[in-house]
Amino acid sequence: MNPIRVVVWGENVHEHKNPKVAAVYPDGMHTTIAAGIRENSSAVEVTTATLQETDHGLTTERLAATDVLVWWGHMAHDKVEDRIVDRIQQRVLEGMGLIVLHSGHFAKIFKRLLGTSCALTWREADEKERLWVCNPGHPIARGIDKYFELPREEMYGEPFGIPAPDEQVFISWFEGGEVFRSGCCWHRGNGKIFYFRPGHETYPTYHDNNVRRVIANAVEWARPQGQWADVSHCPNVKTPPEPLAKKAD
Amino acid sequence: MNPIRVVVWGENVHEHKNPKVAAVYPDGMHTTIAAGIRENSSAVEVTTATLQETDHGLTTERLAATDVLVWWGHMAHDKVEDRIVDRIQQRVLEGMGLIVLHSGHFAKIFKRLLGTSCALTWREADEKERLWVCNPGHPIARGIDKYFELPREEMYGEPFGIPAPDEQVFISWFEGGEVFRSGCCWHRGNGKIFYFRPGHETYPTYHDNNVRRVIANAVEWARPQGQWADVSHCPNVKTPPEPLAKKAD
Amino acid sequence: MNPIRVVVWGENVHEHKNPKVAAVYPDGMHTTIAAGIRENSSAVEVTTATLQETDHGLTTERLAATDVLVWWGHMAHDKVEDRIVDRIQQRVLEGMGLIVLHSGHFAKIFKRLLGTSCALTWREADEKERLWVCNPGHPIARGIDKYFELPREEMYGEPFGIPAPDEQVFISWFEGGEVFRSGCCWHRGNGKIFYFRPGHETYPTYHDNNVRRVIANAVEWARPQGQWADVSHCPNVKTPPEPLAKKAD
Amino acid sequence: MNPIRVVVWGENVHEHKNPKVAAVYPDGMHTTIAAGIRENSSAVEVTTATLQETDHGLTTERLAATDVLVWWGHMAHDKVEDRIVDRIQQRVLEGMGLIVLHSGHFAKIFKRLLGTSCALTWREADEKERLWVCNPGHPIARGIDKYFELPREEMYGEPFGIPAPDEQVFISWFEGGEVFRSGCCWHRGNGKIFYFRPGHETYPTYHDNNVRRVIANAVEWARPQGQWADVSHCPNVKTPPEPLAKKAD
Repeated sequence: MNPIRVVVWGENVHEHKNPKVAAVYPDGMHTTIAAGIRENSSAVEVTTATLQETDHGLTTERLAATDVLVWWGHMAHDKVEDRIVDRIQQRVLEGMGLIVLHSGHFAKIFKRLLGTSCALTWREADEKERLWVCNPGHPIARGIDKYFELPREEMYGEPFGIPAPDEQVFISWFEGGEVFRSGCCWHRGNGKIFYFRPGHETYPTYHDNNVRRVIANAVEWARPQGQWADVSHCPNVKTPPEPLAKKAD
Repeated sequence: MNPIRVVVWGENVHEHKNPKVAAVYPDGMHTTIAAGIRENSSAVEVTTATLQETDHGLTTERLAATDVLVWWGHMAHDKVEDRIVDRIQQRVLEGMGLIVLHSGHFAKIFKRLLGTSCALTWREADEKERLWVCNPGHPIARGIDKYFELPREEMYGEPFGIPAPDEQVFISWFEGGEVFRSGCCWHRGNGKIFYFRPGHETYPTYHDNNVRRVIANAVEWARPQGQWADVSHCPNVKTPPEPLAKKAD
Repeated sequence: MNPIRVVVWGENVHEHKNPKVAAVYPDGMHTTIAAGIRENSSAVEVTTATLQETDHGLTTERLAATDVLVWWGHMAHDKVEDRIVDRIQQRVLEGMGLIVLHSGHFAKIFKRLLGTSCALTWREADEKERLWVCNPGHPIARGIDKYFELPREEMYGEPFGIPAPDEQVFISWFEGGEVFRSGCCWHRGNGKIFYFRPGHETYPTYHDNNVRRVIANAVEWARPQGQWADVSHCPNVKTPPEPLAKKAD
Repeated sequence: MNPIRVVVWGENVHEHKNPKVAAVYPDGMHTTIAAGIRENSSAVEVTTATLQETDHGLTTERLAATDVLVWWGHMAHDKVEDRIVDRIQQRVLEGMGLIVLHSGHFAKIFKRLLGTSCALTWREADEKERLWVCNPGHPIARGIDKYFELPREEMYGEPFGIPAPDEQVFISWFEGGEVFRSGCCWHRGNGKIFYFRPGHETYPTYHDNNVRRVIANAVEWARPQGQWADVSHCPNVKTPPEPLAKKAD
């Protein structure tokens, strides 16, 4: 099989504004996320793109050559241009995989594809998160034990404003008493979508081996299995397969 | 129970441009659709709204007092203002029912809530359509026989670019050889959505008794069963239900 | 509307073997569950049935006159006769609602309708359970705050071997560190199914006001909205709606 | 990747009772189905099994070494022993793929996994069937045009008593006027299930190139992507991940 062409997209803003974030991710969060995917999959070719590039690094040509897009954004969701969101949506419907991380729950592309509020509750309090596997045989949970823990993370809590997931892979338990659907799968058009909760910018979450493995697994799961090239065409089929009866006027 | 407050929204353009449509629907398609709902349900209070009114007739106050919105649009989808679409989406997620008819498959609100292309194939050729009931006990099929026919309709064919329906109520057979998922249910947020295929503007489809009954049934099915008032809030819950452990720095 | 005819089915074994259970539920768990439904809904007519009765209290006639069946069983799942399970399944597919409580996750009827293992992890350790509402507008969560707590319950943990729920209403947080999909909805045939986790026999869970309200809400949600009378018929339709072309031999 | 180990299971009864069937499938239907898979996939190792063998050819050892099971049965569904059905169900929940063909809609294993009636309407009248692709990018539709036709087949019509499919790949149009959900995907436990309608025993359907290709595609789609080894275990987890508070008695 050909390698899976992965683009890790990073908003790349916190890293330049918050020294705490810069200390954890000196080369940018996207760089660390990309390294984690490479480390855990031999099937990938991973590059990165950021908000600041022309077309946010996501030209039509590049998206056409992307199999799976991984997305981290937070404080600059509204800086992502609608015409680029249109372009990504089109590619997902055609078959490109999409992995949305953490605060990407409010990314335009995620809300666009799901159609719901994608709202949740949250708290920044250095608390322990334990992610439970809901389907131990799921390819996204490959190599993960019954659960794994992150010693300090931001809390996200229910209600999470999403359509019912096609498959539930993880649910989180938080030290402070909340729960959250942390790993959710959907199909939209011909594309596969996975939302994965962890990854607040001030914590070293994307250096965690379990988190890195899950993202790499998700990339392999989301690789295109086909192409629906004309997914947005609405053709007038003038000649029917069957002859039509003559109608009286 | 209180009456179901229904608003039938009509684009109301074809009726004024095409004499053929004006002949079939002299008071507007929305008026005929509204009459059909009243005729088939004793549980409703039905009014109408059109594109041409201020806020397309859908002010915040009116939508707040609407239980189920029925939508017919076609040639002026792009004339519907995004701020009104935002408002409708918010109400559906809170719990308002939405019935989308025929060419409304490309309405902004339908594409917004489903997230997919909503594309299909089509043909205008006066052909026979037969709608089969996929779940004879479904409330939307109440009073409908195993199938019903429309002697002349526009054809819509698969592939229909939608997320997998939560429930399939009707599938259509067309004289020319195509099939189509003609009655589809989804939940989004706290609202129920039903798409119903028939209703090309040049045919007397909304005078048909079976079609009228299905739309009235769908209105009763889609009535709100609750309200998710703060569906888009994303609150910071500073005080956790459980005490947090002190963390070493 | 006619009253909802509810039958609360109780295995009725623990109550006679374990003095601790008898002390909490002196008239049987089914009696307490039934009282809680009556207390929280004015729309119901509630009776009870038990394993020990002829046909386990579920004759064909009685099931035909039942709108919603509520099920609690645990140590005697295998004493439920298959012919009665067949009968219940048939009624659910026709449209009868089914509410399965706690250890009923391993009831024959639940496994039959879902087709999966329905396995989970568990622990009896007097621990706190907090049930979070995933859709605050859902009719089953009516009158429930963001969450409610049970001070002592048995723990059930993921993975829960179920098909992806059509709607997720509750997820539980446990003091010992686990999570669980505690309130799940499915449609099967024309019937609605709700699984609700709490209710270990040694705790006064069915005396809890929130638990009682949820069960009553679920009964109202699951009331039949139609009847698919011949859901298991497989008729030979000898005369097609359309004439068939003559075929050469 | 390792080859996909496929077992094609054939009831193998019609072939020995009906000369017409024997003429179309002189080596048995299972042999022809197996040949079609080999012809259309280079990723498979295909063997066959039949009802008449010990354990119907499906010993525990063999099923443990099977990645995807393809099933054709009709007149002898009730001859399949429940203990073998238990065994197959267990393997599907663990992760084995299952492709159910045509009259297998009433096979014990299919009804067991879906939980519904799986009933439909039917007619044997040599009529034309046209199968439309609902998702042109789906791996199961790879290499198939917008539709394909079978000149003579048995008719299956809606309502089809199934849970809502996770994905709809094909819908059929019949000459006599019916429609049917002909290609449906579900997940159960860790296994993928595909139902594919065509294949009445008296027609040369399994010699058709499109049908053969679809079955081969489905086999590749359904290959296990993991293993949920203890899918039916229900362990008592005595030691919780978190310490429990002491409770007053």
